[in-house]
Amino acid sequence: MRNTQQPSGMPIHKYRPYHEQLKVDLPDRSWPSRRITKAPRWCAVDLRDGNQALIDPMSPERKRVMFDLLVSMGYKEIEVGFPSASQTDFDFVRHLIEDDVIPDDVTIQVLTQAREHLIARTYESIKGAKQAIVHLYNSTSVLQRDVVFRTDKQGIIDIALEGARLCREYEKTVPETNVFYEYSPESYTGTELEFAVDICNQVLEIFEPTPDRKVIINLPATVEMATPNVYADSIEWMGRHLNHRENVIISLHPHNDRGTAIAAAELGYMAGADRIEGCLFGNGERTGNVDIVALGINLLTQGIDPEIDFSDVDHVKRTAEYCNQLPVHERSPWAGDLVFTAFSGSHQDAIKKGFEAMAARADADGVTVDDLEWAVPYLPIDPKDLGRSYEAVIRVNSQSGKGGVAYLLKADHAIDLPRRLQIEFSGVVQAKTDSEGGEVSSDQIWSIFTDEYLPSPVAEERWGRFELLGTRTASDMTGDVELHARLRDGDDVEDVSGHGNGPIAAFLEVVRARGFEIALYDYVEHTLAAGGDAQAAAYVELQVDGERLWGVGIDGDISTASLKAIVSGVNRAIRTRERSAELAAV
Amino acid sequence: MRNTQQPSGMPIHKYRPYHEQLKVDLPDRSWPSRRITKAPRWCAVDLRDGNQALIDPMSPERKRVMFDLLVSMGYKEIEVGFPSASQTDFDFVRHLIEDDVIPDDVTIQVLTQAREHLIARTYESIKGAKQAIVHLYNSTSVLQRDVVFRTDKQGIIDIALEGARLCREYEKTVPETNVFYEYSPESYTGTELEFAVDICNQVLEIFEPTPDRKVIINLPATVEMATPNVYADSIEWMGRHLNHRENVIISLHPHNDRGTAIAAAELGYMAGADRIEGCLFGNGERTGNVDIVALGINLLTQGIDPEIDFSDVDHVKRTAEYCNQLPVHERSPWAGDLVFTAFSGSHQDAIKKGFEAMAARADADGVTVDDLEWAVPYLPIDPKDLGRSYEAVIRVNSQSGKGGVAYLLKADHAIDLPRRLQIEFSGVVQAKTDSEGGEVSSDQIWSIFTDEYLPSPVAEERWGRFELLGTRTASDMTGDVELHARLRDGDDVEDVSGHGNGPIAAFLEVVRARGFEIALYDYVEHTLAAGGDAQAAAYVELQVDGERLWGVGIDGDISTASLKAIVSGVNRAIRTRERSAELAAV
Repeated sequence: MRNTQQPSGMPIHKYRPYHEQLKVDLPDRSWPSRRITKAPRWCAVDLRDGNQALIDPMSPERKRVMFDLLVSMGYKEIEVGFPSASQTDFDFVRHLIEDDVIPDDVTIQVLTQAREHLIARTYESIKGAKQAIVHLYNSTSVLQRDVVFRTDKQGIIDIALEGARLCREYEKTVPETNVFYEYSPESYTGTELEFAVDICNQVLEIFEPTPDRKVIINLPATVEMATPNVYADSIEWMGRHLNHRENVIISLHPHNDRGTAIAAAELGYMAGADRIEGCLFGNGERTGNVDIVALGINLLTQGIDPEIDFSDVDHVKRTAEYCNQLPVHERSPWAGDLVFTAFSGSHQDAIKKGFEAMAARADADGVTVDDLEWAVPYLPIDPKDLGRSYEAVIRVNSQSGKGGVAYLLKADHAIDLPRRLQIEFSGVVQAKTDSEGGEVSSDQIWSIFTDEYLPSPVAEERWGRFELLGTRTASDMTGDVELHARLRDGDDVEDVSGHGNGPIAAFLEVVRARGFEIALYDYVEHTLAAGGDAQAAAYVELQVDGERLWGVGIDGDISTASLKAIVSGVNRAIRTRERSAELAAV
Repeated sequence: MRNTQQPSGMPIHKYRPYHEQLKVDLPDRSWPSRRITKAPRWCAVDLRDGNQALIDPMSPERKRVMFDLLVSMGYKEIEVGFPSASQTDFDFVRHLIEDDVIPDDVTIQVLTQAREHLIARTYESIKGAKQAIVHLYNSTSVLQRDVVFRTDKQGIIDIALEGARLCREYEKTVPETNVFYEYSPESYTGTELEFAVDICNQVLEIFEPTPDRKVIINLPATVEMATPNVYADSIEWMGRHLNHRENVIISLHPHNDRGTAIAAAELGYMAGADRIEGCLFGNGERTGNVDIVALGINLLTQGIDPEIDFSDVDHVKRTAEYCNQLPVHERSPWAGDLVFTAFSGSHQDAIKKGFEAMAARADADGVTVDDLEWAVPYLPIDPKDLGRSYEAVIRVNSQSGKGGVAYLLKADHAIDLPRRLQIEFSGVVQAKTDSEGGEVSSDQIWSIFTDEYLPSPVAEERWGRFELLGTRTASDMTGDVELHARLRDGDDVEDVSGHGNGPIAAFLEVVRARGFEIALYDYVEHTLAAGGDAQAAAYVELQVDGERLWGVGIDGDISTASLKAIVSGVNRAIRTRERSAELAAV
């Protein structure tokens, strides 16, 4: 079998291998034989490195939502901004401190360059905080020295030392704050190791690390330039050559240019680092910072407590998407919509057998499945532990070349299902066609869809317990909305009302008042282009009495469409429950 | 600085570390000291592993587009399907062979399980091919043996050997085809290494590798279960223990469950593998197969020829998105929309200085910039080498808490700009506001937007050289569309016509006939919900006479909106050129 690959003509003459630029030589490395046994110290930098990489940076309100999310998940060190570079960042730090929203065991971190007016402004921003990490950085790489700063090594060292000295001086202006230090030789991966360790050691002499006041030395892969083992080698080398090692916290800050940031963080941590900086789902400059959700859940799969709560990863994802206004990809580790989905028959069969074997073993041992070690093929984690569920997607019609269910709904009815609803609906179609057999036409798919999610077009036929007959909303402009609705509940028609920050929240209150536990997990809407009318479709993912499912509403008014979608979801939940009860009775 | 992280309550008791389940012990590993020096043999599995993981699998037409893309990029081994498991896959393989679309130096690969009727069908599918790789697999992991196959090691070996023997037998039914073999101990990462090497060595005895007919042993991380160094250790171990090593091609097939597939492929390749299987942009089951675009371009950044053409990565991305109906994420390595974007002032400044330094050096050396080694901070590759460009995004209004430009256009005008157009437009806004100063209101943004992209609302004012006055299209139902348009060109009004597979293609022909080199790079449309009318907005990314830029069209008819968008783009290209000419004249 001859290899017939040909030269590509790509301009390889413009690029030089990393090892010809920078020497990382550690033949006696020990990290490849080590194993991770506990969680690192985490530092979430979503509000700084993540935020600065957004087309539309977070508004103060979104920043606060992100901060609260990070705190609720268990992050204890949170870089909250670059207050000397941005008025919004400054104001946000002041808000956190003045409105007393930082829990006692959480330490905020602020970034600053090594220039006096910026350092002064940085200390101004943290005044009144119980504790804070001042994160000082300057660029140390060969390239930045040559083209940006046009100075020699000593010039770069002077910038760092002067910055560190100024920090110690301005520290006196915030006597009520417990100040800790972090120093980053920025563009560390483009810096000679000997120079990096030299500048860090000199900075350490000024920051004076002690057991009670350890200093963080952060070694950023500002740009990821080599395979991740090289970063790990460099970290082990630094650990051997840093002074005051016992009072130094070595921190990693990998970027993902080559797509190996998660590996770089893991191998670097094995190589002796103590701490990892990154962002939820790998937001951040260019290809992003390392994904601290993936890193954390990777630990869990090895029986190691991440010390972060990932029990509702959909909530984390939804909130991050809201704050960043950037989607989390369908295949993002542990959190993407398609991650716990099996399409192939052999995978589905193996997964089914895995579940059955666990159930049988639990029975035999007289315990519950949750007491057992997780062992299901193709599912490296129990989706339930992350608040997710496993979905077997059996395709209908998809191999015939006409396109699948979602394609036909979109092409013929302008219905653009959200990814997870596509998955749910494929199960609905499968259930119907299993019993009827044969190939399914677009008309049949549409009729299954309307039958499942939408009120019957025949007025007398009622499709579920609830029906929305009319709505009226009033807002007092304080963010509170009052909703009045005319609701059919079985055979009764009632006038009901609820409050909330919007009509959806208000209507959920109405539903709760009728005895349902209900929470909103996702909300998507679009207008329907087909037919030239201005109808809108709304899709809501709900959890109703413990069951996760979707509802769909179509209406000329988008707000009404969303309320109809909630009714659709609640009716479906009731139907499912009744069906199960019937089956149990049989 | 005390670590205040707390136990999370996540159910760690359910998970056992990998090393307690499977032993990979290689203290004398050599891979961490090795370096990659040449491209591996690539095998693209988009049409099999990628396709089987899609909610809507590719139609035959899309499969063909994907196949042609892979061939045009330079992939020489392409897994085209699982023909015995799916009639569409079978038909597609027949189409490739019967319509003679496989270049002589490309080898198709087909997957089969080790069962006789499937093997028979597989050989039926490849009849008439010049050469083909038959890829035989069966599951070997501890878990699958216990739970799925309920058999011992010998039972699993028997399945593999019987499959291999049947392959050799059915090989005789395709005497005109040069058959090569690949064997995969599926779920290799869940298999004891001693057992994996034993089964592979026994299969090799049946496949009889020779120098002319090497056999591929593929070692899939069907599920990624440990840090990537463990996979690399296992590959080096296998390389030491496989028989006929000189006639065996060791192939990697990493999945990305832990987010470290790229690292696993790179470290595994350093550990002695010869070949890598993966998908464009990491499509594939769950979190995907390894991303072979990232792997290839990673090589380029080290001065190594990937032997794959990535000179137009946007085209590759667009085509993959069309075939897979899945987006490539904004931060996907080397290809995402935000990858060559700098938002922070200090990054932009450093990049600018890097470009200036390169230009100065080229001047001094009397060469062009493209002759020099690439050295620009924060840009690990010249975006131009991938057909991309660097974008400095200077934010307007974004830090004030009102939301940025894109947010305001969406909130106030229902205009939902595609990501790359957001980036382009932020530059337009910046250029206007630089000269005028002050904060920018939503009204001002709207007026800048319409001024730049849309015809003037004042009828007499003409906004550019071209204007679309009317269109008429006719289709003969063979896929060819004839377009007649009334077009103002300067002061003349003319009737023009063009042909294409749709109105856009037909109109591009009209534009080309007027002396422009024009190509379409992206097309996005949506309806405008605002105001309750049924207007639609179309956005086109064009390359006009070498310049990449966007055009926007709004119309009640979506097809007309898209033609207006092309006019918008062409007019903008002409305006830019005129402006540059004016500046040059001054």
